[in-house]
Amino acid sequence: MQSTLIRNVRLSGQATSQDILIEQGHIRQISDRVSPPDHAVIIEGNHRLALPGLIDGHAHVDKSLWGMEWYVNEVSRELPEIINNEREFRRTREFDSQRQSERILRQAISLGTTHIRTHIDVDTEIRLRHVEGVLATREKLAEQIYMETVCFPQSGLLGRPGTLQLMDDALSLGCDYVGGIDPSSFERDPVAHLNAIFDLAVKHNKGVDIHLHEPGELGAFSVELITERTRSLGMKGRVTISHAFCLGEVDPARQDTLIQGLADMNIAIATTAPSNRPVPPYEKLRAAGIRVTAGNDGIRDTWSPYGNGDMLQRAMLMGLRYRWRQDREIAQALHAVTQGGADVMELKNYGLSPGCQADLVLVAGQAVADIIANPPQERTVFKAGKLIADRGECLF
Amino acid sequence: MQSTLIRNVRLSGQATSQDILIEQGHIRQISDRVSPPDHAVIIEGNHRLALPGLIDGHAHVDKSLWGMEWYVNEVSRELPEIINNEREFRRTREFDSQRQSERILRQAISLGTTHIRTHIDVDTEIRLRHVEGVLATREKLAEQIYMETVCFPQSGLLGRPGTLQLMDDALSLGCDYVGGIDPSSFERDPVAHLNAIFDLAVKHNKGVDIHLHEPGELGAFSVELITERTRSLGMKGRVTISHAFCLGEVDPARQDTLIQGLADMNIAIATTAPSNRPVPPYEKLRAAGIRVTAGNDGIRDTWSPYGNGDMLQRAMLMGLRYRWRQDREIAQALHAVTQGGADVMELKNYGLSPGCQADLVLVAGQAVADIIANPPQERTVFKAGKLIADRGECLF
Ligand SMILES: [Zn+2]
Ligand SMILES: [Zn+2]
Repeated sequence: MQSTLIRNVRLSGQATSQDILIEQGHIRQISDRVSPPDHAVIIEGNHRLALPGLIDGHAHVDKSLWGMEWYVNEVSRELPEIINNEREFRRTREFDSQRQSERILRQAISLGTTHIRTHIDVDTEIRLRHVEGVLATREKLAEQIYMETVCFPQSGLLGRPGTLQLMDDALSLGCDYVGGIDPSSFERDPVAHLNAIFDLAVKHNKGVDIHLHEPGELGAFSVELITERTRSLGMKGRVTISHAFCLGEVDPARQDTLIQGLADMNIAIATTAPSNRPVPPYEKLRAAGIRVTAGNDGIRDTWSPYGNGDMLQRAMLMGLRYRWRQDREIAQALHAVTQGGADVMELKNYGLSPGCQADLVLVAGQAVADIIANPPQERTVFKAGKLIADRGECLF
Repeated sequence: MQSTLIRNVRLSGQATSQDILIEQGHIRQISDRVSPPDHAVIIEGNHRLALPGLIDGHAHVDKSLWGMEWYVNEVSRELPEIINNEREFRRTREFDSQRQSERILRQAISLGTTHIRTHIDVDTEIRLRHVEGVLATREKLAEQIYMETVCFPQSGLLGRPGTLQLMDDALSLGCDYVGGIDPSSFERDPVAHLNAIFDLAVKHNKGVDIHLHEPGELGAFSVELITERTRSLGMKGRVTISHAFCLGEVDPARQDTLIQGLADMNIAIATTAPSNRPVPPYEKLRAAGIRVTAGNDGIRDTWSPYGNGDMLQRAMLMGLRYRWRQDREIAQALHAVTQGGADVMELKNYGLSPGCQADLVLVAGQAVADIIANPPQERTVFKAGKLIADRGECLF
């Protein structure tokens, strides 16, 4: 039975360092001084901070260009054109979604991500190629990262006959959630789109995670329609709305009403805390008991060149976006990239206490707010008690 | 006569690598293959990108806590309370502005900053201590960084008799610009505040750089008052407005009128591209010929823990804030942290062509948009032809 003793790490909120004993992939003991069992692997923590494994609650690992030749972005700002441009790219270039999802995941793992929910494009041109690629990567990296998958109709569902059947097939292949996309502004028929994806979810007994970029009252109307369907179909606790810019745009009284509906149906919110769009009101959502996860969204793809897979960088961007400057406020950003994601994914045994699975990250810093305000690149990462990355390099 | 040959670096927009010959601190030659003069120092560029030295157009190096014990931020969001909290901090803790400005500048230099404009607090409690500290640092680091200084009435001018005289003294000591702060929302008397600082500028024949956070039409009114004084006092080209959130808030027609006034008086804008406030319309400003510089503002101080002195990170935040995704758009962020700053500081011989002072940074990356979207920490920095930092470490 393999045991590992991590010596001298600081847990959030603790002034002094402690030792963490890991046995059979789980945290067995945390205390001031643990005597190592025979044959234990001993790792010196050097008084670094220990965080639970980082969680990316909204990703698109199937489409990253990470490690490929530089892509010169010349695409306009219009959503349909961006999506057409991406399909055109896939028609004309070699793109291997298994290889690319593995590349960006290895990068994310090296920076401490241990759990991820990724949307995977399904359309009538690539069909199930990306789904198959990412599911192959999931199997390949099963010991290094926990992955949830969403089959995602990026090019639209209603205007492209055959897409719904492909999503149906993707769920049969193993996707965990039904995805969706702006039912009014992009799909042009909110009832038809939402009925289609919710019916599919019911058919496969899966949850829903829908992209909602719609502004203001248009987005708010979609939130209402999603909430209504969650209620009428008995899907309480199984729906996530990603982005939900509209919640940050409507007036406070309207926010309250929408949030009450979300809370009643235990609908989760995923945010990237974008600096150029309104953001859902984090404190208000949390005060209502709503689960909130943060995500890196697309990393270096034909949409945008930004990002490096680091969820501490996302926490920093979140802190800047919400103007969190107090240590107490910045702790919310850590929550969003750790426990918040675990709540949305309904992970069992997540966290840094005895009995939890030993998924953790060691990072040098003076305080939690320090490593979020200025994330150091060097990390030591454990998955189920096994050392899997160190100093930015994967050890597998 | 010392010469240095940098081999195999890529200049922005060039596909192939070139050699740069530096003599007497200036770029002498850039071409495909340069034969090294006798006794030349030869540096291998390894096909990294060569950028001109990075320019931080708005900093507060006098107040950074960089390298000090962690400061637990518990201050409210109200500007007067933040300012009072900072004065309280200085009353109760050891704070050495010379040491701290040197620390944060060494950090910034290690990441490629070769020019900086810093505001320096002057008030009736610290009096000229910060001015003296930063001026001492300027002298100490004169060969590593070019610094402009602004005497800044952070705690207000009108409500604290004696402040104006201290600013007068600061200018006599060597400060380059007269600073100012929200003349209505903070100072409560726009005419009195602006008249005081402009009179001081005229008396000392110096320029003005004023902090303007005022929202919407209140800020727009201040912009008008500043523009009027610039015109009537013959200070065209000698005034900078920092932040100017209001320019991003008023409607497009009003923007046009304000921008016309700024352009007529050649008033410059400094921005940090904050993710939680409106931002001045960059493209519109530039199209009107207005000089725009970017700045890191305060780094890790009692106001906020964010930042690390890196102007490529600022360029990344700027790109995210303005939603620049095309390579062509992202090049604007590089302009803002290089030539834009040089224009605002009216630097002679700045840039990467023969005859320019050899201030440059080497960074590994596939393209300009690559190093801005994901800034690598390793930099090689030259100031006036001398290698002064490498791999994140200062060599002085
Ligand atoms: Zn997405
Ligand atoms: Zn400032």
